[in-house]
Amino acid sequence: MEQFINTKETLVHDAIDGFLRTSGSPLSRLDGYPHIKVVIRTDWDKSKVALVSGGGSGHEPAHPGFVGKGMLTAAVCGDVFASPSTDAVLAGILSVTGDAGCLLIVKNYTGDRLNFGLAAERARALGLKVNMVVVDDDIALPDIAQARGLAGTLFVHKIAGALAEQGADLKAVTDASVRVITDVTSIGMSLDTCTVPGTPKEKRIGAGKAELGLGIHGEPGVEQVDFENARSAMEMVVDRLAPKLTSHLYVALLNNLGGSTTLEMSVLANELCRSKISAQIGHIIGPAPLMTSLDMHGFSMSLLPVDQAQLDALLAPVAPSAWPGCSVIGDVKTTLMPSGLEIPKYRASDHSATRVLLSAACIALVSAENALNALDAKSGDGDTGSTVKAAVQSLADAIDQLPLADTAELLRAIGSTLSQSMGGSSGVILAIFFSSAGHAAANGKTLSEALISGLERIQDVGGAQLGDRTMIDALAPALDALPHGLVAAAQAARHGADATAQMTRARAGRATYVSASNLVGHNDPGAEAVALLFEHLAKAQ
Amino acid sequence: MEQFINTKETLVHDAIDGFLRTSGSPLSRLDGYPHIKVVIRTDWDKSKVALVSGGGSGHEPAHPGFVGKGMLTAAVCGDVFASPSTDAVLAGILSVTGDAGCLLIVKNYTGDRLNFGLAAERARALGLKVNMVVVDDDIALPDIAQARGLAGTLFVHKIAGALAEQGADLKAVTDASVRVITDVTSIGMSLDTCTVPGTPKEKRIGAGKAELGLGIHGEPGVEQVDFENARSAMEMVVDRLAPKLTSHLYVALLNNLGGSTTLEMSVLANELCRSKISAQIGHIIGPAPLMTSLDMHGFSMSLLPVDQAQLDALLAPVAPSAWPGCSVIGDVKTTLMPSGLEIPKYRASDHSATRVLLSAACIALVSAENALNALDAKSGDGDTGSTVKAAVQSLADAIDQLPLADTAELLRAIGSTLSQSMGGSSGVILAIFFSSAGHAAANGKTLSEALISGLERIQDVGGAQLGDRTMIDALAPALDALPHGLVAAAQAARHGADATAQMTRARAGRATYVSASNLVGHNDPGAEAVALLFEHLAKAQ
Repeated sequence: MEQFINTKETLVHDAIDGFLRTSGSPLSRLDGYPHIKVVIRTDWDKSKVALVSGGGSGHEPAHPGFVGKGMLTAAVCGDVFASPSTDAVLAGILSVTGDAGCLLIVKNYTGDRLNFGLAAERARALGLKVNMVVVDDDIALPDIAQARGLAGTLFVHKIAGALAEQGADLKAVTDASVRVITDVTSIGMSLDTCTVPGTPKEKRIGAGKAELGLGIHGEPGVEQVDFENARSAMEMVVDRLAPKLTSHLYVALLNNLGGSTTLEMSVLANELCRSKISAQIGHIIGPAPLMTSLDMHGFSMSLLPVDQAQLDALLAPVAPSAWPGCSVIGDVKTTLMPSGLEIPKYRASDHSATRVLLSAACIALVSAENALNALDAKSGDGDTGSTVKAAVQSLADAIDQLPLADTAELLRAIGSTLSQSMGGSSGVILAIFFSSAGHAAANGKTLSEALISGLERIQDVGGAQLGDRTMIDALAPALDALPHGLVAAAQAARHGADATAQMTRARAGRATYVSASNLVGHNDPGAEAVALLFEHLAKAQ
Repeated sequence: MEQFINTKETLVHDAIDGFLRTSGSPLSRLDGYPHIKVVIRTDWDKSKVALVSGGGSGHEPAHPGFVGKGMLTAAVCGDVFASPSTDAVLAGILSVTGDAGCLLIVKNYTGDRLNFGLAAERARALGLKVNMVVVDDDIALPDIAQARGLAGTLFVHKIAGALAEQGADLKAVTDASVRVITDVTSIGMSLDTCTVPGTPKEKRIGAGKAELGLGIHGEPGVEQVDFENARSAMEMVVDRLAPKLTSHLYVALLNNLGGSTTLEMSVLANELCRSKISAQIGHIIGPAPLMTSLDMHGFSMSLLPVDQAQLDALLAPVAPSAWPGCSVIGDVKTTLMPSGLEIPKYRASDHSATRVLLSAACIALVSAENALNALDAKSGDGDTGSTVKAAVQSLADAIDQLPLADTAELLRAIGSTLSQSMGGSSGVILAIFFSSAGHAAANGKTLSEALISGLERIQDVGGAQLGDRTMIDALAPALDALPHGLVAAAQAARHGADATAQMTRARAGRATYVSASNLVGHNDPGAEAVALLFEHLAKAQ
């Protein structure tokens, strides 16, 4: 599978440099490429306890994305899914540690423990105060001696980060971290494996299956389970976490493992809020990508029982933009639907000349059904005539309820009637035309001016212009000629409609997809309908 | 392909509700499910110009994620990739529009234009001031009349949002939006199609290929191109955008279409910063998912020439956490490597008894090579003896350079030598053991106490405890007995090593993965090495 990388060897360098160039944050990296890949704060004076974390890459935004005021002081990055070397960790420690000392926050993987552990030892030999904590929040295997470190690590980064930023000493920061590690639990679920750069993707999870209890390095989950839907997935995860819960209030961390869409993560968040443990969860971090496993199509959930001091630490603002914040979980707030959605009612009135014209128009278009259908069959699905017939029939049927004596109201009423009776884009466009014309007429425009105003609006909204082989090619010249009478308008409409037969490239509407040879020689059915309409109106007046 | 959804029909509801429950923001939705899906600000008093946007879902965080102070007032959501209805848009407009009026920000798709357009008309008929702008930033097809709306839409949301928040009137907000739309250009590239819920994924893009000039609804790109790497991908995108550039300073928006990893997006950002147009780009928004196409493995880039007022508007803080901010693009800042990484030098000194003991230890372990290899072959790859031999040989070779007369320094020197000569986890663990013991000895501990201190550290760092079938099963009892002399220590080590033959479940190290039947009856090779060492030391003293 292709990926947007250059080479596997330069991937982590390129990504760190891209991050540093575009983060806009006071960050730098140690000048130790290719071997030493360490991101550090530049707004750091060593007067406070330094927090150094890291591990293999492939978990972004962890860890470089969490370096900054209120969180990590340095992130030591290995290659994808590989621990950084002891030298790299030591370089990170030495760069940021002052008299206040340094806490190493390490996820429970052998390579990380050993390299961070030896680096700590070497730093101590150089006279630095260094503590180390190991995060093992995974509960996938209930009796495993060495539980993995997962996204629960973020709780440690955030709470230790807040304390360190406040000036707490190394013992206090360490003790707070140990307490989080003791209490935090996590479990992951995925529908697919991740794509490790340079390695063919493993097809391990079959259709209809999910893996429960997985790590963040593509290793198989503890079990494959039947996947039904988001609700049952969240229920399975909740069922594993629920037995660990005490009567505390909890903060949840809902982590996108990389390949789940924002839609899916929101659905999962909704299911968490509807789950049996929801009453115990007061706040949530995410849903967001926090500790990913490249593009793994999965999520993990971490739970931490908190007291007020821990909650305050989680709520404290931080510089890193990858931190999504910690939000109160609330009910869905709803707002009453506004009034004004109902179809407006018009006061029926009569006006004999208008009645005659409108009836004539309806009759003309009803009788043109077959001719228009035949024209439409050349460039579409052959139903323009039938669509128009149904629409004008509804107008004819409603004629006794229409405000025939009030031009502005009548135009609006026609728009409203057509929007209900005529399907598809044409119905919407005609509704906009008549509504807009009615609006203009109500504001004192003449009928001709009002109709031109409607025309401008549909050109604006629909995007079709003169020459695009649409009804506008007949309607625009007709309305231009209308001040000179219906006969002039009818002639102009006919001329315009006939001209569409030579327009071989439709630029709007469905005929855009029809080849020139299928268009030439046939009038556009919409333009033809307009021409027929004006021709009949001219006769009927 | 499975997805974390419940049903296709409830997907957008579930996601909006999940978002509202967990966003922690002053947002609500209209009480119009299932048909009306509109997210609105609750901290809104209608005194300013309202901004209403939206369209089909599947582009998250657009549009609900951008509702909030400084950006949108309402987002009207359709089903996945389907325009919301006219009624839904009208409901959004009516809910948030006061005397200051409302601007509709619409992406250039027919359904959106028509439904937003008719809703605008109906709102005007109800007396509201409503303007509408249509974003058409796509440059994939150079001469197309109807360019698509892509992620450049975010520039409109942000700049119009800043102006509206400042109290600008509808004309000013509209004019500023039109100016952005005139100037902004975008193009997308993808390595794979997106997965539309409920629809089988289309396999359209072959291996080694990418699509250039694509939309955000899974429609095919304008062309398939050869995909080489991130650099050439960014070059192709830059080559399409570059001819549009004027001498202005630009802001880039680098959008994750949904399925690219954070690593990949950072690599692409790095390539943008190294591209031929980098000198003209002063600021960047992202890389981040802004206008996604579900899980599409691609990106889009948008460019906007800005003056200071526009830049200020882009830089203004906003409430929606999905907005990644607008950052200055900078060089990579590097920090000099710290001193202290070089392997410490020790002052050579002699001490005959120590020399005798150390030499004896080396000889004992060198001669145990085959026996230890044979034991290791029962549970590992049969090289423990050889690894140990190589390591102690390096110690023996260095004996004249070692600080034999200074216990603390000697322990540290042994640790340092072993960390260089002994590969794998064992070398690191022994380095930690001796370094930590040396540190303790330097702080006034006796040799026994210092070694126990080292033992505690490696238990802490390595995670192995007594009974886990490691060298600790021999080392711990030996060190406990050491105050009673080397003979007692040797007896304890032997007893401990022999006990490992009955430990059928390794809980640390590589033997974790070996079945009990392959372990029983054989001493752990590490524990055996420790026992052999103490037995020879007892004889040699």
